[in-house]
Amino acid sequence: MKKVYEGKTKDVYELENGNYELKFKDTVTGKDGVFDPGENQVGLTMDGAGDANLKLTKFFFELLNKRGIPTHYVNCDIENKTMEVIAAKPFGKGLEAICRYKAVGSYLRRYGLYIKEKTDLPGFVEITIKDDKAGDPPISPESLEILGITSLEETKMLYKLTKDISDIIKEVLAEKDLELYDIKLEFGRDKEGNVILIDEISGGNMRVYRGDEYIDPLRLPGLLLD
Amino acid sequence: MKKVYEGKTKDVYELENGNYELKFKDTVTGKDGVFDPGENQVGLTMDGAGDANLKLTKFFFELLNKRGIPTHYVNCDIENKTMEVIAAKPFGKGLEAICRYKAVGSYLRRYGLYIKEKTDLPGFVEITIKDDKAGDPPISPESLEILGITSLEETKMLYKLTKDISDIIKEVLAEKDLELYDIKLEFGRDKEGNVILIDEISGGNMRVYRGDEYIDPLRLPGLLLD
Repeated sequence: MKKVYEGKTKDVYELENGNYELKFKDTVTGKDGVFDPGENQVGLTMDGAGDANLKLTKFFFELLNKRGIPTHYVNCDIENKTMEVIAAKPFGKGLEAICRYKAVGSYLRRYGLYIKEKTDLPGFVEITIKDDKAGDPPISPESLEILGITSLEETKMLYKLTKDISDIIKEVLAEKDLELYDIKLEFGRDKEGNVILIDEISGGNMRVYRGDEYIDPLRLPGLLLD
Repeated sequence: MKKVYEGKTKDVYELENGNYELKFKDTVTGKDGVFDPGENQVGLTMDGAGDANLKLTKFFFELLNKRGIPTHYVNCDIENKTMEVIAAKPFGKGLEAICRYKAVGSYLRRYGLYIKEKTDLPGFVEITIKDDKAGDPPISPESLEILGITSLEETKMLYKLTKDISDIIKEVLAEKDLELYDIKLEFGRDKEGNVILIDEISGGNMRVYRGDEYIDPLRLPGLLLD
């Protein structure tokens, strides 16, 4: 098995059947030793982080596949902390698709002049480019096309899938009395050029509250899966 | 005549006929004594700046009115550095509509990972909110509606007018062998609720080159009007 990529929170191996294996690690992103899913650097190692992330990812991807959402997920092996996925290429150098139900985080930093913290948003979708140096800026459908990252047709699909997936996850969390504030997803193109959900879906992808209490991402598997 | 607003580069007086008078000042925006149209603070006073800005503004607004573009312009008095305009309210706490023909400035800072400096752009329009603290961030049509700043209908009109106006100005500059790289415009609602062009159009609103040479905004009246 050839390691083809070493990431912040997981490594990627090429399998003989043409698929890929994601190996989840116990490293989490953060800064100055504090866990922060929004951070771009690896901050610390936390025992059980890889396990927690994979369990949630398995849960969400299997649910989404059942609902007919196209994803890269094939199966996973909790014991070995690995997940098998089909081949897919990220868009450009990587995009994030965000769905927002509450005004927090970067949305509040940008538009705080017009909106109060935690105001309801109608599942508002936006796309950002992954570029640490530029601060992961949002990008419009027109610019995505101008820069040759996604076609308008693909962008439309990205928006639709992001909203559909986020609504499903919001609903599943709500059944456990948990409220989804926002969530970020990653998409790519499979070999046939279809837009599919890639990467993982774990606590680090979303902000979740129970009433006024912020739920630490590593507590999510316990609250959701037990 | 009552002064109703004191701005960075002009003051506003209320006239008895219900219109307003803009009084152009010789202050220009900049930082550390260097003129920079993109700056939000008043940097220095330059003799003739008010005069140059008003002359260009008169030229462009009269041209646009002739072409059927709705603006707040009534007339102007070069000697007294004043311009009479009809009443109009800015959108929210102020928007800027930008039209880009070349990748420079904040577009390049945001998307430099995907595009080289000075690459052609197809008259790409984007809207930013005026908020010094937040760095005047771009905003999507959906967010403009969510935040109650403009309706989708108004935003569509903003995009159309911005493109039409910018194309006219680009064409006029091209006749003098000058190239428009980008331009920022301001719009508001008149008493009937129509979207109209407001504020001024002077060298500080646009980046202009002749070949590889950047044209200082204060040189524009001399190059364009003589």
